[in-house]
Amino acid sequence: MKVSELGEFGLIDLLSKIIYENQDGQSASRRNLLLGIGDDAAAWQSDAPISLATVDCLTQDVHFSLDTATWKELGWKAMAASLSDIAAIGGIPGYALVSLGLPGDTEVDDIAELYRGMIELGNQFCVSIIGGNLSSAAIVFISTSVFGSSNSKGKLLTRRGARAGDDIAVTGYLGGAAAGLEMLKKHMSTNPESSTALRNAFFRPRPRIAEGQLLAEQGVKAAIDLSDGLVSDLCHLCRASRVGARIGIDRVPVHPVAKNVFGERSREMALSGGEDYELLFTAGAEVIARVKAVATFPVTVIGEVVSDRTAGVTLLNSEGNPYKTARAGWQHFV
Amino acid sequence: MKVSELGEFGLIDLLSKIIYENQDGQSASRRNLLLGIGDDAAAWQSDAPISLATVDCLTQDVHFSLDTATWKELGWKAMAASLSDIAAIGGIPGYALVSLGLPGDTEVDDIAELYRGMIELGNQFCVSIIGGNLSSAAIVFISTSVFGSSNSKGKLLTRRGARAGDDIAVTGYLGGAAAGLEMLKKHMSTNPESSTALRNAFFRPRPRIAEGQLLAEQGVKAAIDLSDGLVSDLCHLCRASRVGARIGIDRVPVHPVAKNVFGERSREMALSGGEDYELLFTAGAEVIARVKAVATFPVTVIGEVVSDRTAGVTLLNSEGNPYKTARAGWQHFV
Repeated sequence: MKVSELGEFGLIDLLSKIIYENQDGQSASRRNLLLGIGDDAAAWQSDAPISLATVDCLTQDVHFSLDTATWKELGWKAMAASLSDIAAIGGIPGYALVSLGLPGDTEVDDIAELYRGMIELGNQFCVSIIGGNLSSAAIVFISTSVFGSSNSKGKLLTRRGARAGDDIAVTGYLGGAAAGLEMLKKHMSTNPESSTALRNAFFRPRPRIAEGQLLAEQGVKAAIDLSDGLVSDLCHLCRASRVGARIGIDRVPVHPVAKNVFGERSREMALSGGEDYELLFTAGAEVIARVKAVATFPVTVIGEVVSDRTAGVTLLNSEGNPYKTARAGWQHFV
Repeated sequence: MKVSELGEFGLIDLLSKIIYENQDGQSASRRNLLLGIGDDAAAWQSDAPISLATVDCLTQDVHFSLDTATWKELGWKAMAASLSDIAAIGGIPGYALVSLGLPGDTEVDDIAELYRGMIELGNQFCVSIIGGNLSSAAIVFISTSVFGSSNSKGKLLTRRGARAGDDIAVTGYLGGAAAGLEMLKKHMSTNPESSTALRNAFFRPRPRIAEGQLLAEQGVKAAIDLSDGLVSDLCHLCRASRVGARIGIDRVPVHPVAKNVFGERSREMALSGGEDYELLFTAGAEVIARVKAVATFPVTVIGEVVSDRTAGVTLLNSEGNPYKTARAGWQHFV
């Protein structure tokens, strides 16, 4: 059945049912909810001193193609991108609103799958979808707003918290998402395990929610999530903190499957690919040591913050000579 | 200059500057802000016990045409639609995130005007734009999330609060937005005052924020804002409250300019036109009397809530006979 046959209000009813049946009803966010889907606005009881909010959007033929993505993957990724922003400031996510645009000839079953993908990821972090908006549109867009909380102003990770002398570190491995995208665009065939790993790296990233909170607990002050690409996002952080940075490209942890499949090219993917949704953070050596001591996830120091902001981000090869990337990272419109 | 020449990050810088220079820096929302534009998520100090959130979206060639709307009007209307949802539950709005999709060949000056329109309305209600997302897209869409607060669970206006025996009332006058749209679509020429009034009714609606709070203070429990159309929105409220409704069509307050320009047709515009963003609410006669005694805005009783929910919304003409509208109201996709 097409969305145009069901109509806006029929679709709202169906999605409400899917959310009600599949979303974790026992989570704290659900228990505190006063008004959810079906009223003019959502309302919940909140006792945290600090509120957080962010929005991200996946747009057809810019962020994804319906030729390669499943609808469930799109739902997961749309939710992941916004949750990652909450992770990057060390917050606790709670609620999501979904503003969805789609053509009337979209299959209802596809939209149901989109929401199942969002719910699957949301359930892992106690995030409840509590409302949204549906609009007919010539293209599909999925704009996901996420609200969260923090218990302490002093424990927010910000882009402006980096200081000269800090080490620069990243969680996990980089370049997997870019490798997945390249594999899909070029219809490459590789072994099934690698194919699945790279596809998941691109479509099913895991937002580093618990990791962001752990960093904040251990005294980290500066972080950003890697959505545009390592170099590009580090530039944003440096600019906000009025500092520069030096990165040893051999120190950057490249996604092992990306390295296997793409060899030397995987380094560029790790430097400028984006959409890995790992966290980049800076802190003094003793704080980094504390983080490493308690972390159950990979933490790799890749460089250091320098006071000279005019140089921006400098990449150095293994001989300590400057290295130039082919592309700094993703930027819309250009 | 085109957006594609400035790039995403140049545009973010420009919009941040416009917001910083034009937004009311003394408002409570700005004073409580900890992290705004330029970080991964926004953060603010909040001490209200109840948080509110809503999202609405204007989509090109569905909600507006760039042939008739100015960008400043679009900004105003996008903000108004979301603020109206907060008004409809009696809340206090505080912050907005804007998720914007647009083609790269859009003029930068136009996007600046879009934000000036949002800021102009936001300033009237102490609402600060604290972040958002920019995406290239084949069409323009403006998805506006608004966060607010409420001091008391008992003072939320909901769609499910209507009771049999309640009077049904509306604020202001209806049909002005539909009349404005018709005038624009058909390139009608009327006198300049009427033309301006109807254009403003469509593009520059005033969300009933203070009015929603006043209704809640006076003991009203049920409300909805009129975005889809009187009959359609009343149907939503009846369904949520499991009741029916009877409306006297002669009692419906038709926008005076719509009546002057469109004569008898203005009644249909008032019944099913939508986008007037007035509030429809229900309450016992004594509560309505209290509201009327303190209101500085028009309040008109147009019918009553009945226990028979199977009949839905019944329209009655001046002789008390059933009246059928040409169209129930706006619904996406159909």
